[in-house]
Amino acid sequence: MRSEDIEDYAKGSTNAHKMAAKQQEISVTEFFEKNKQILGFDSRSKSLLMGIKEAVDNALDACEEAGFLPDIHVRVERFQEDDEYRITVEDNGPGIIHKMMPNVFGRLLYGSRFHALRQSRGQQGIGISATVMYGNITTGKPAHIESKIEGNDEVAWKMDITIDTKTNRPIVTNDTAFAHEGWEHGTKIEYTTKGRYITGRQSIFEYLRNTAIVNPHAKVEFHDPEGKKYIFERATEQMPPKSKEVKPHPEGMEIGDLMKYVQNTQQKTVRAFLKSDFSRITDRIAEEVLEKAGVNPSAKPSSLKREDCKAIIGAITQVKIMAPPTDCLSPIGDTLIKKGLMHILDGMKPEYYATPVTRPPKAVNGNPFVVEAGIVYGGEIPSDGQVTILRFANRVPLLYQQGACTITKAISEVDWRRYGLEQRGGKGIPFGPAIILVHVASTKVPFTSEGKEAIASFPELQGEVEQALRLCARNLKSHLNKMERKSKTHAKFEIVQELIPAMANKTSSMLGRPVPDLSGTISKIMNVVWVEPGVKKGGKNVLTVNYTVYNYTTQERTLRLHAHLPKECVNLTLFTNPNFIDMNDEGKTTWEIKSLLPSSSTIISFELKGDMADTFDADDIYISGINPVLVMGAEALPGDWGIKGLDITESDESIAAYEEEEIEEAEDLGEE
Amino acid sequence: MRSEDIEDYAKGSTNAHKMAAKQQEISVTEFFEKNKQILGFDSRSKSLLMGIKEAVDNALDACEEAGFLPDIHVRVERFQEDDEYRITVEDNGPGIIHKMMPNVFGRLLYGSRFHALRQSRGQQGIGISATVMYGNITTGKPAHIESKIEGNDEVAWKMDITIDTKTNRPIVTNDTAFAHEGWEHGTKIEYTTKGRYITGRQSIFEYLRNTAIVNPHAKVEFHDPEGKKYIFERATEQMPPKSKEVKPHPEGMEIGDLMKYVQNTQQKTVRAFLKSDFSRITDRIAEEVLEKAGVNPSAKPSSLKREDCKAIIGAITQVKIMAPPTDCLSPIGDTLIKKGLMHILDGMKPEYYATPVTRPPKAVNGNPFVVEAGIVYGGEIPSDGQVTILRFANRVPLLYQQGACTITKAISEVDWRRYGLEQRGGKGIPFGPAIILVHVASTKVPFTSEGKEAIASFPELQGEVEQALRLCARNLKSHLNKMERKSKTHAKFEIVQELIPAMANKTSSMLGRPVPDLSGTISKIMNVVWVEPGVKKGGKNVLTVNYTVYNYTTQERTLRLHAHLPKECVNLTLFTNPNFIDMNDEGKTTWEIKSLLPSSSTIISFELKGDMADTFDADDIYISGINPVLVMGAEALPGDWGIKGLDITESDESIAAYEEEEIEEAEDLGEE
Repeated sequence: MRSEDIEDYAKGSTNAHKMAAKQQEISVTEFFEKNKQILGFDSRSKSLLMGIKEAVDNALDACEEAGFLPDIHVRVERFQEDDEYRITVEDNGPGIIHKMMPNVFGRLLYGSRFHALRQSRGQQGIGISATVMYGNITTGKPAHIESKIEGNDEVAWKMDITIDTKTNRPIVTNDTAFAHEGWEHGTKIEYTTKGRYITGRQSIFEYLRNTAIVNPHAKVEFHDPEGKKYIFERATEQMPPKSKEVKPHPEGMEIGDLMKYVQNTQQKTVRAFLKSDFSRITDRIAEEVLEKAGVNPSAKPSSLKREDCKAIIGAITQVKIMAPPTDCLSPIGDTLIKKGLMHILDGMKPEYYATPVTRPPKAVNGNPFVVEAGIVYGGEIPSDGQVTILRFANRVPLLYQQGACTITKAISEVDWRRYGLEQRGGKGIPFGPAIILVHVASTKVPFTSEGKEAIASFPELQGEVEQALRLCARNLKSHLNKMERKSKTHAKFEIVQELIPAMANKTSSMLGRPVPDLSGTISKIMNVVWVEPGVKKGGKNVLTVNYTVYNYTTQERTLRLHAHLPKECVNLTLFTNPNFIDMNDEGKTTWEIKSLLPSSSTIISFELKGDMADTFDADDIYISGINPVLVMGAEALPGDWGIKGLDITESDESIAAYEEEEIEEAEDLGEE
Repeated sequence: MRSEDIEDYAKGSTNAHKMAAKQQEISVTEFFEKNKQILGFDSRSKSLLMGIKEAVDNALDACEEAGFLPDIHVRVERFQEDDEYRITVEDNGPGIIHKMMPNVFGRLLYGSRFHALRQSRGQQGIGISATVMYGNITTGKPAHIESKIEGNDEVAWKMDITIDTKTNRPIVTNDTAFAHEGWEHGTKIEYTTKGRYITGRQSIFEYLRNTAIVNPHAKVEFHDPEGKKYIFERATEQMPPKSKEVKPHPEGMEIGDLMKYVQNTQQKTVRAFLKSDFSRITDRIAEEVLEKAGVNPSAKPSSLKREDCKAIIGAITQVKIMAPPTDCLSPIGDTLIKKGLMHILDGMKPEYYATPVTRPPKAVNGNPFVVEAGIVYGGEIPSDGQVTILRFANRVPLLYQQGACTITKAISEVDWRRYGLEQRGGKGIPFGPAIILVHVASTKVPFTSEGKEAIASFPELQGEVEQALRLCARNLKSHLNKMERKSKTHAKFEIVQELIPAMANKTSSMLGRPVPDLSGTISKIMNVVWVEPGVKKGGKNVLTVNYTVYNYTTQERTLRLHAHLPKECVNLTLFTNPNFIDMNDEGKTTWEIKSLLPSSSTIISFELKGDMADTFDADDIYISGINPVLVMGAEALPGDWGIKGLDITESDESIAAYEEEEIEEAEDLGEE
């Protein structure tokens, strides 16, 4: 219709006609070509990173989907002339079938993960094609793709791809099959792009390093433009659990969404529609919802009017529906977060890795999400500036747009002074020798733009991040407290143990009388049960742990010890220990010491062996069944530790106090 | 092709086949429907604002394009039930022709301004359709549109519009012509949406108020949900100059862009192509570029290879090409910025409106842009927190994502301690009683997302913002300095004028001798030429300005006075003043006082009349032709004042010092 219309309008005399003559469709490719910054391609340095990020994200997604431990090679080469770079990213993923290669790399808004409700890095079907487009715009050269799928009989394919920006369709040249000895399967992209290679906080190196932290199952090799090679080795052979596709959760659904679902469903009745097209809706719940909504369960879905849909939406908020399923998500888990952080940060010799926190799943707009947080403290981490923030979304590091991200806003909202960090006025990014890690995993991370650099500030999401941070910060704080108390008591202990015998000796010798037995006296003065952890490294991945428990009180003492062990690392030595009582599914372990006599001691000893052994922090030891005021070197078992049947009435009251404060703060939560 | 392919792939046994079966196109509407936060529709409160913003932006664009002074009505009504609101935005624009109404409101990526290189608020063809879509998703109701184009014979049309998200096409119902007595032309949109009505910094009221600041030619009426009515009256009847469409500027063009242009040009030779398809390329420049590039000027454009294009791009950087034309831009201008700020902020009785700065145009990626900055200081502006930042892009206030915006980053990079504001460590948002306004006008503002909430950090752009801020801050600082010096000298002056005569009287009476003439003595002690501004308001929009110049030195003095007057407000009283010398196009005015005798004074007096009269600050008075150290109450004429033929060798050296520091700082400019 366009051309004759335009002529018509141009003839029209009014302003409206003149404007109408200019109205036209905007191709999505043209839109992004002229708004490259929205895709994250603004400065040359950032653009160089963006492309690599998109390629590596895709490689990791593909490997995990196929169940292969990722092995990824990244190479950045500088051309002699000007600011052109050649980037190569190669993976050992399942490969892409020949016919699909052009669309995957040469068409925006095309992909396999957009419609699937499960956690993945790529979701938009934009990133890698945008990379191809940017490379082509800035250098005029196509991208070169090679791929080989599984199977001995399959050949590999290679081709050059660019995008036709008018039509958003791939243009393919040099499409060739070839044999590649020893290539089992995988994909390789090689493209040229203008860029600027930088080092530091927002560098490619930093991105790959942070990727290794949250993807401890991946091996990443990086060749920088100087020809230097860096290898981030796998920290574990354990693949993350594969995330499953789920149906939408009814909570937070908009009326417009429901109106669309009822038109598109295959089901014949509203009851069947609710049950089969959503997660967590049973027959009983469907009945209950429809009764409250006043809708006939046997009605045809397509017969529902706007008012019916509105009533159903209203009823859903009143009926108790199970939280969204979580097998669509793949959080990293506290042990692996710690392992990843240690793997990368050990050079800084941090004083303490606060036990990371993985929150229970919630949903925002029907999309389940999980928040995880970790804090690393002290050692050689610089202490004079703001803390370092490591942001991650679906296991991808976010290096840009820190100020725009809900994670940063959440960090600014927590009062860190309470947890031992400096913070002016109790707001803003805190100062001190700490690294704060936050990971948001979701079936759809709500990024602020297609560049996927920052997470939008939905109140529910930001609140969860704050909660995770407070819980993790509390772990840090209780460690700092414990260390302080311990060092004070240690000092006192040393004085008592040296001074009293010396005084006794002196007095005795002056009086010419025998030196008395002093252990009772020392116990009277100290009046503590002393728990002393000891750790010995016995070769790679072997740890021998000893807990020596001294009774420096004047009575017999019975108590239980608790520690969270990396389950896969324990062996017979744990179970044969006479004090051992139980280990649960998570590796939370209980020992009991019965009737420990005054002035006597006992040792609990066991071995940890394997990849995760070094994530165990022997200082994280808890006690129950005894007044915690009497114990030095171990904390009272927290109320949320989650082992049933244990007497935890003596648990630290300060935790309850924290919780209250947290609830108050959570209620204050504003928007942006 | 899809369905049979999917079956094929699903049969395949490899991971690659399974994945291929899921690959599919993503409709742009579905993409944005599932990523509403990218469009700015995340929290309910923000969504409510976003829709109004899009509608008002469109209304202002349409009025300006047609040359009508905008008259805009915004109404927000709350429904009794739940959190549904009805929004109405009505304008007196040129209207939309009947056939175009569905596409304008019911189709994403459709519009008249995307391909045009000129300043406008809407550029993406997304905003208003996204508003219609969000209203429909959250309430299930269509938007209702009415429009009437110019012409007495024309009828008005109304219709209901929703978007088919699968196809990204409008669905129209109730399409009806109607007669509307007294409606000359205009457009009205009425839609329902879920939302949350908030007050404060990110409210609809604040958005409209800030819109009024930078659009002093618009009248905006607002009815809030309580039924209260607010009117932001027009501050001026003067329409902003209409921005013209330009061709792309060759600077900063990417090779891929050029390769596309050569394929699409109508021109027969490369020479003609360069000259006609770009701005600022003359025959001579085309020849020079092509010679340097080694390309035959008579070659057919489509025959150019990648290497030729690369050579041309290289040559363009070596040939001096005029800066981009600026009639595609419509900056607000310093006077109108001040007027707008005064209009809105006078309730806070600020101590000083620092003379706003409009920078010369630059280009980023071939798109011309201009940066403007203003600072308001003191009075009842709160002094205990961070300064308030007012961000604007193409005359639209930006209320969200402050942390993500290049304007905020630029403010954080300026060392404000140097200009009289508090700032910890010389970095970050400063503290103090100030409001900082920054306006970026461009043919394509590089927003970080489709929600148009923050401007991306291109180094060239951020550098310009920093420069504008420093220049404006210098105006503030020199005012603060002048005020401080003036108050000190005033004190001294009062003492001298009271004390000396009193002493003389006393001594004379004691000695019985006549009181001597003291004017020479006072001059000797003071040794200044005193410039005293005086302003009298004579009814609405009339200002009588007096400058009294006293010579308290011991010699005859000749000097020139300079002030920047609102040109359209001067009248005969200015030109008939015997000291008047000249007024240039911008209103910069010069007077000369010849041979003013010691201990004598003279008065320069004139009247300002009109809208802009009150934007004149009589304290902003400059001198030349005299050693500025001798003058109190007026500053040395700055070197960049821009009046030729004046002796400005005595100009304040501190300015040069500032400039040097600025250059250093500009060189330090990092990214993000």
